[in-house]
Amino acid sequence: MSVPDAVLTAMRKTNDLFHTAVVGKRDVQQLDRIYTAGARLLPPGASMITGRDGIRAFWQQAIAGMALESARLTSVETQMAGENVFEIGRADLTMTEGQSATVKYVVLWKQEDGDWKWDVDIWNAD
Amino acid sequence: MSVPDAVLTAMRKTNDLFHTAVVGKRDVQQLDRIYTAGARLLPPGASMITGRDGIRAFWQQAIAGMALESARLTSVETQMAGENVFEIGRADLTMTEGQSATVKYVVLWKQEDGDWKWDVDIWNAD
Repeated sequence: MSVPDAVLTAMRKTNDLFHTAVVGKRDVQQLDRIYTAGARLLPPGASMITGRDGIRAFWQQAIAGMALESARLTSVETQMAGENVFEIGRADLTMTEGQSATVKYVVLWKQEDGDWKWDVDIWNAD
Repeated sequence: MSVPDAVLTAMRKTNDLFHTAVVGKRDVQQLDRIYTAGARLLPPGASMITGRDGIRAFWQQAIAGMALESARLTSVETQMAGENVFEIGRADLTMTEGQSATVKYVVLWKQEDGDWKWDVDIWNAD
């Protein structure tokens, strides 16, 4: 089932916040507006991380460690998954050193406090 | 919403087939009983692969290349996603050389021809 436009717009808002605030300004407090309280993060090279404290710590270290400068997120496929949204996406990353990488991801989106947030987030490199 | 026992049983049957037939006997034809006709595979280190021919070719090469001997799949979390099932899981891999690895994955399950199959499959290493 296709995802209503209003939901897609809300999802883009969340993705933009990740791009501009979390990666762009390294403001990891904004992650609380991006991930649900019970979110599960499944990053390459580490075990599953559950909850906001761990997710904040992960991204703080990852953004600094990778010298990540920009992360543009693009939806490749979206579908309703009951009350949630299932998304396949692509992230185009650039580092301060001028390197770039492409990452593909799956996110299960969930509505929380009126916003659409990432409830499960897994990715890997192309 | 929790997944009915009958569906969980059908999912285990599919996972067992991957373990015993595809990895155990290297019978990649059985992948047609595991992945839906339109399945999307998002493997680490490669672009997204869509459809059975590409998926069969990927696994043939991956199983031989990794010298994969065993892949035990365990559900960590399952939830209904509309008519589909969203799963977080863990794969315990062993290679013919005696090495082992743990992989975490997300699968979107879909019913096709009466069987529960993998419609989207993404994973990465711990």
